[in-house]
Amino acid sequence: MRGVIMYAPGDVRVEDREMPAIVEPTDAVIKLAATCICGSDLWPYRGAEHVDHNPMGHEYAGVVTQIGADVRNVTVGDFVVGSFFASDNTCEICRAGYQTHCVHRQPGAATGAQSEYVRVPLADGTLVATPGQPDTDLIPSLLAASDVLGTGWFAAVSAEAGPGKTVAVVGDGAVGLLGILAAKQLGAERIIAMSRHADRQQLGRRFGATDIVEERGDAGVERIRELTDGLGAHSTIEAVGTQEAMMQAIRATRAGGHVGFVGVSHDVSLDGQELFFSGVHLHGGPAPVRRFLPELIQLIWDREIDPGVVFDLTLPLEQAAEGYRAMDERRAIKVLLSV
Amino acid sequence: MRGVIMYAPGDVRVEDREMPAIVEPTDAVIKLAATCICGSDLWPYRGAEHVDHNPMGHEYAGVVTQIGADVRNVTVGDFVVGSFFASDNTCEICRAGYQTHCVHRQPGAATGAQSEYVRVPLADGTLVATPGQPDTDLIPSLLAASDVLGTGWFAAVSAEAGPGKTVAVVGDGAVGLLGILAAKQLGAERIIAMSRHADRQQLGRRFGATDIVEERGDAGVERIRELTDGLGAHSTIEAVGTQEAMMQAIRATRAGGHVGFVGVSHDVSLDGQELFFSGVHLHGGPAPVRRFLPELIQLIWDREIDPGVVFDLTLPLEQAAEGYRAMDERRAIKVLLSV
Repeated sequence: MRGVIMYAPGDVRVEDREMPAIVEPTDAVIKLAATCICGSDLWPYRGAEHVDHNPMGHEYAGVVTQIGADVRNVTVGDFVVGSFFASDNTCEICRAGYQTHCVHRQPGAATGAQSEYVRVPLADGTLVATPGQPDTDLIPSLLAASDVLGTGWFAAVSAEAGPGKTVAVVGDGAVGLLGILAAKQLGAERIIAMSRHADRQQLGRRFGATDIVEERGDAGVERIRELTDGLGAHSTIEAVGTQEAMMQAIRATRAGGHVGFVGVSHDVSLDGQELFFSGVHLHGGPAPVRRFLPELIQLIWDREIDPGVVFDLTLPLEQAAEGYRAMDERRAIKVLLSV
Repeated sequence: MRGVIMYAPGDVRVEDREMPAIVEPTDAVIKLAATCICGSDLWPYRGAEHVDHNPMGHEYAGVVTQIGADVRNVTVGDFVVGSFFASDNTCEICRAGYQTHCVHRQPGAATGAQSEYVRVPLADGTLVATPGQPDTDLIPSLLAASDVLGTGWFAAVSAEAGPGKTVAVVGDGAVGLLGILAAKQLGAERIIAMSRHADRQQLGRRFGATDIVEERGDAGVERIRELTDGLGAHSTIEAVGTQEAMMQAIRATRAGGHVGFVGVSHDVSLDGQELFFSGVHLHGGPAPVRRFLPELIQLIWDREIDPGVVFDLTLPLEQAAEGYRAMDERRAIKVLLSV
């Protein structure tokens, strides 16, 4: 089987790898229908996170080829979608909807998902089967549900996007763009996308953005305030993970409003006093995608949403290195790797 | 009229001061029924905040003696309770329940409330009249509603204390203790007070604490986890404002749980990555006491709650300096100054 290994920052290779097999009786093995590169894969690629011969990839959708002896909820032949964290989906934390913090959580794509096959632990609590075998054109959207859509959705839910609300979105990557889609689905009245790239602005508008703000930092905050009677947004999605983006999100939000932050925080430090006097609600973290998967799969199945259009570049798995370069250089929003 | 001036850290004096008068047509002047010292007054007293000949005091309850020409909702002779921030109570932020962030907010006790009389701006949006003239024994509780009760209440609401929830309370000052009372009123199943002082533990139990944890910092967090099946509290109230207390609150809370923080943050810095992976909800700031005043006044009036018992030392206004010393040295939880 072929799969992606990141040897070191900037050094991505596709290699022959051992075929995944059942290790625990709760495991499943999946043949991927397609795989992809995540914005968060760029952190190690750029040297901001440690990496040393790591199997890559944590987003996956495909057909179950093997199940362990204890697996009950999915069976061989099912088309399934999972999340980047495996969860038992039965503990108290899971039942509260926080499967990414499951007391038994572990990486969902145990052997790396940028490959032809992947082993998934805790299959019963992690995988959700689609109503049947999907049409080929639905596969990118189902793959997106596995992470970027689920993460953007969680950000919008955390920001309490909904009817009557003005939602600001900081970050025009796949997660930010799908946060727009989620805010629209949740009924937001007005959605302000913060983006200075024409192609991403266009996709943002397609997903439901009503306004575009090109300014960043303090100037971006000022623009959001101008658009909201000086008060700030009710709901802000932070989908970057830098200090600037986080402060932009907090400062763009009115007192009593909600910031949903899903950018993996790197070197972010929040001043307690500023947060205190901001009066915002702050919630985020690794998205409990599993909570939303049944609903998201149904919306995709019914063709109510088309999150798969965030994949603006498709390459064969063998060209993964070029896929990483394209995302690193922002030539592509998100790269789908065909297998 | 006599009133308290803080000349410098540690230097508190009671002096003859000018009688407050109406300045704006939306002002009222109140004759205080009693006044008190706030835990937050200790920040400047201890040199942690700038102070230079400041009139002190921001908690007040008493009888209206004068109103400006535009005041409609209260009249001379009414017994009223107000908040430490004056608010119009009509702007969009106020209507959303965040009166401490009102677009017209200003200090509620414009001339300082540790005195015989105080001028309150925006009287219509700030003051709430009691159903009649209160019995004398209700006055400490009505005064507590003005800040410490309203703040503890907001902390408990922000922490989403309620039925079935385990609530941890960091801080055993008046606000933390009244956070216990609030959590109890909101229906919390279990309330864990973090305190190592026998008198405060006793008051905590009286207000509804079911468990006491004496450990602090990491050991305190560990104890909370032991008491909650290793998961952490659903809801945590932070009522101190230091780095240690804030981290204790965040770490004592399960993923998906809620931290309500009302300690005025001093030199607190939150690591973005830790907050990200904690999965908690964080909300707090200066409590919008005005939102809760009608309900709190009624509960006091009906003798459902007795927050006034946090005043464990009563001194005449003339002895304010001794009151500050007693609170600074933690000989008193909260000092009432009779006028």
